Amino acid sequence: MRSTAENAQLALLLEVAGAPKPGNVDRHREYPDLRFEHFLAGAVGARDGLRMAADGERLGAAFREAIAGMSDQRGGNTQFGAVLLVTPLVAAAGRGDLSPDGASAVVAETTVADAADFYRAFEHVDVAVEDPPEGMEPLDVRRGGDAIPVLEERGLTLEGVMARSAERDGVAREWVGGFERSFAAAAAIAAGSGPVTDRAAEVFLELLAEEPDTFVAIQHDRETAERATERARAARNGDIDPERLSEEFVAEGINPGTTADTVAAGLFVALERGLDV
Amino acid sequence: MRSTAENAQLALLLEVAGAPKPGNVDRHREYPDLRFEHFLAGAVGARDGLRMAADGERLGAAFREAIAGMSDQRGGNTQFGAVLLVTPLVAAAGRGDLSPDGASAVVAETTVADAADFYRAFEHVDVAVEDPPEGMEPLDVRRGGDAIPVLEERGLTLEGVMARSAERDGVAREWVGGFERSFAAAAAIAAGSGPVTDRAAEVFLELLAEEPDTFVAIQHDRETAERATERARAARNGDIDPERLSEEFVAEGINPGTTADTVAAGLFVALERGLDV
Repeated sequence: MRSTAENAQLALLLEVAGAPKPGNVDRHREYPDLRFEHFLAGAVGARDGLRMAADGERLGAAFREAIAGMSDQRGGNTQFGAVLLVTPLVAAAGRGDLSPDGASAVVAETTVADAADFYRAFEHVDVAVEDPPEGMEPLDVRRGGDAIPVLEERGLTLEGVMARSAERDGVAREWVGGFERSFAAAAAIAAGSGPVTDRAAEVFLELLAEEPDTFVAIQHDRETAERATERARAARNGDIDPERLSEEFVAEGINPGTTADTVAAGLFVALERGLDV
Repeated sequence: MRSTAENAQLALLLEVAGAPKPGNVDRHREYPDLRFEHFLAGAVGARDGLRMAADGERLGAAFREAIAGMSDQRGGNTQFGAVLLVTPLVAAAGRGDLSPDGASAVVAETTVADAADFYRAFEHVDVAVEDPPEGMEPLDVRRGGDAIPVLEERGLTLEGVMARSAERDGVAREWVGGFERSFAAAAAIAAGSGPVTDRAAEVFLELLAEEPDTFVAIQHDRETAERATERARAARNGDIDPERLSEEFVAEGINPGTTADTVAAGLFVALERGLDV
């Protein structure tokens, strides 16, 4: 039987292998500088940090270790958001309570030290983020460890950091909202049939059709994110071939990363709950 | 920096991701019952055993653990041969001597207990093997642990087992021949350029064009294996499109598994020697 850390690693791998996953790297599509092999190496490197989370080590330290490992390849940011979303779920599973309440308890227990590690994780890899709102510049994640004195001064825990980003970032919203979409994705994956990577691709489209991707909104703007969601809806309804949508998204640089993160989290939960591969 | 066990796991993943790899599961082709996702799960499960080999634990025990983990998915045998070929190389790397001599020293030190674990590994998964030569039935690997008393009676080490199979099995031949083709594959991969998965696919074709695949010879016969090698040669010369060859091999059930194993070993050595991903 796979360990919790093994399931987390497998979830990362299955997520990137699912195709077609319009706009994201998948088994059939990659970018010249961000290739499928970078995701494989990223998932290999993330495992030790994920194991730390499963073993009950401090969440921030586990996350930072996973990101350091994930970043040890030349593609840059492969699955930062997926690792961020999966880590508290892994910690909850490690305690034997992989449920919305169990995961929320993990989040509630985070400390300022966890927030500091979260900031330090950004030193390992370039992650596309929005400029912080006015007055929040001292807490721009791109400052990395330099922001730590401010975190300490304000007594900001990792939960607090996430709460401040929940409005504009879908991963943060999951963190402070009981991981609702992650658990829903898990249920959808478990209820499906056929190859798991096909189910992952289907759930990706379903999630994107349901709600605009916050990563697209950050990289482009809200309107682009909404348009992408409308087109995902059209693909779900059979009005656009998902393969064609893939090509369009790639051409336009639309990369629904938060939706992919949610699929990875859903895969992890489904695997822990007995999904067969 | 990736650990030795991480490089071994990454080698397994990069091997299966390389495409087109005529006749084998790759990123673009799979069989209904043996899918890409089974290989991902297999590589996830193999890692702990590979780490044992890197840490200097007994080779047979490490191999058996890797195979037990690899087998924890529904596809059956995904990378048995690759794990068998990589394990002594991992052990040699763990000692700081990843060279033909270093790997041969690991092989030379194997014991009857290692042979016993090798046999037990066959209890985890169905591996296609040839009927043993006359008089060797008591040592048919398909007997699993039941063959152990015979191994002990004859004082047969794992090196001895491999030596007896070297004539008809390419992996065993590597074990007792200084891993010549594995190191040559590593050099070819390192000398290439572009995506590592593309290089892996190219070296696969190169190796197959060079020498008939013993797994094809076991599953079909010597003539089929020779014909497959001739066609790989034609693909190398540009007379057949490798994608077309893929389709033909799949249609005919030609599955050059030993060649893929050698590519995995080559990838591992290249990664240990600094190949960037």
